[in-house]
Amino acid sequence: MDKRNPREWLCLKRTVRFGETDAAGVVHFLELFRWCHETWEESLEKYGIALKDIFPTNEINTSQLDVALPVVHCEANYFQPLYVGDTINIELNTEKINESSFILRFKFKKNGEQIGTTNIKHVSINPITRKKCALSKQINLWLYESSLNF
Amino acid sequence: MDKRNPREWLCLKRTVRFGETDAAGVVHFLELFRWCHETWEESLEKYGIALKDIFPTNEINTSQLDVALPVVHCEANYFQPLYVGDTINIELNTEKINESSFILRFKFKKNGEQIGTTNIKHVSINPITRKKCALSKQINLWLYESSLNF
Amino acid sequence: MDKRNPREWLCLKRTVRFGETDAAGVVHFLELFRWCHETWEESLEKYGIALKDIFPTNEINTSQLDVALPVVHCEANYFQPLYVGDTINIELNTEKINESSFILRFKFKKNGEQIGTTNIKHVSINPITRKKCALSKQINLWLYESSLNF
Amino acid sequence: MDKRNPREWLCLKRTVRFGETDAAGVVHFLELFRWCHETWEESLEKYGIALKDIFPTNEINTSQLDVALPVVHCEANYFQPLYVGDTINIELNTEKINESSFILRFKFKKNGEQIGTTNIKHVSINPITRKKCALSKQINLWLYESSLNF
Repeated sequence: MDKRNPREWLCLKRTVRFGETDAAGVVHFLELFRWCHETWEESLEKYGIALKDIFPTNEINTSQLDVALPVVHCEANYFQPLYVGDTINIELNTEKINESSFILRFKFKKNGEQIGTTNIKHVSINPITRKKCALSKQINLWLYESSLNF
Repeated sequence: MDKRNPREWLCLKRTVRFGETDAAGVVHFLELFRWCHETWEESLEKYGIALKDIFPTNEINTSQLDVALPVVHCEANYFQPLYVGDTINIELNTEKINESSFILRFKFKKNGEQIGTTNIKHVSINPITRKKCALSKQINLWLYESSLNF
Repeated sequence: MDKRNPREWLCLKRTVRFGETDAAGVVHFLELFRWCHETWEESLEKYGIALKDIFPTNEINTSQLDVALPVVHCEANYFQPLYVGDTINIELNTEKINESSFILRFKFKKNGEQIGTTNIKHVSINPITRKKCALSKQINLWLYESSLNF
Repeated sequence: MDKRNPREWLCLKRTVRFGETDAAGVVHFLELFRWCHETWEESLEKYGIALKDIFPTNEINTSQLDVALPVVHCEANYFQPLYVGDTINIELNTEKINESSFILRFKFKKNGEQIGTTNIKHVSINPITRKKCALSKQINLWLYESSLNF
């Protein structure tokens, strides 16, 4: 049995950068989605998955992927503004929907207070035909072990 | 009575740019939200509203705004991939919720086929206290005349 | 002899969008480079080149490109701030360096006053080996006809 | 005398994220400038400067800044492509030009090999009048201590 603690790869943090703000002085709304995808990538890495095994690249000598994971739905709620320099704690919660799709749920907290939530649904497809296909073993394992967390 | 046709400022289009794609060869999911905000701005301009009357700027001699319009919720559905050079028709549909908030609904079409939808909820607040306040006259008029469309 | 006027595809314009500003209330510096690439794409389209013949895409039934055009150098000078809603005129000037590279020079003007300049050097390479190769016929023709402008 | 080692706040690293790539499968050229600004911010933080003392924000109870630091020139050279998941080491080198401006020079390395360089010139101005003014004490101290590094 795996004794690893999922919190290690599901609880992350980042700092608000100046380029993420707009002229209203706060974080521009769509940056939250950028954070989600980057947090997911960081989570996979911390868990032990090489990003080049999941995301397409044209690097020579890297295996051509037979699975892509496009976003088919996403949404966000914003409760509080965020400012340059704010430190944000991000909690990632996963839910496998079926053999070819899953939802990532993110909670964003600042000083313990929830300032926003998002969820993003990914579907596994063949990148050429764009037909649904089964999730890869690696993603399935990450989803399974992540679900032991909460 | 205004005889103007709302379709003039609610039906817009744009072309997919290379920098909007990712290594999967298709438009990165969060770019759709960028298009929404830019489409909204273009719609306000075509209707006859100066952006500096709606969005904050620190330009000298421009009146300090007493209303901000942050996004409090947004969501997107993706039906088909988009590629560099694709021409996208965007239909904007507006809904006033109450005196301080409204929803913008966007449909994205390529060759007549719907490839995605989004909706974005904005709330009118005082930018200092961040308390809700009434929508400005200009936004109210744009919302009203836009609602005569569909 | 071609009677077309290069100014048609080399003089473009755009409006500053809210998401391009930062908390200083002005356009964030790197957006200028986004404008350059998008202006170049628009110029190619206006000239009559399909973007899918120049930029990679994984769209089915689109020919696989045997040439990529990465940026190897770029620089920008900023003279004046830009604010949301500003209308910017962009002049593009091209210079072929040799059989495999060219420089795009951009001037940005607001109300006739120059507010910034950039230049971007592209090199033609084989996307697999990443070795230099000759520019495509289409790019060569666009460079040639563009050079008749100024 | 300060015994701190400048390498602690001048040698940083980051991982290439999927959203930073384009359909050519490599990092889109302008992302390098985003990295520069974010690296600078991280450097200031590691040195001990609060970002809200340097970058504008409209957060209540945060002092209004009397100095802005816009970019007046920047340039980049690209030697090698970067792919999703690549780990990049970033070396920051600073040069004070005069009482109101400085240049930040960045070297980007992957597996010890230099893959790109950039430099960015900032000028200190009054954000209202936009006239040049003296750099703040904090920035001067950071520049001075950073210059003891190389």
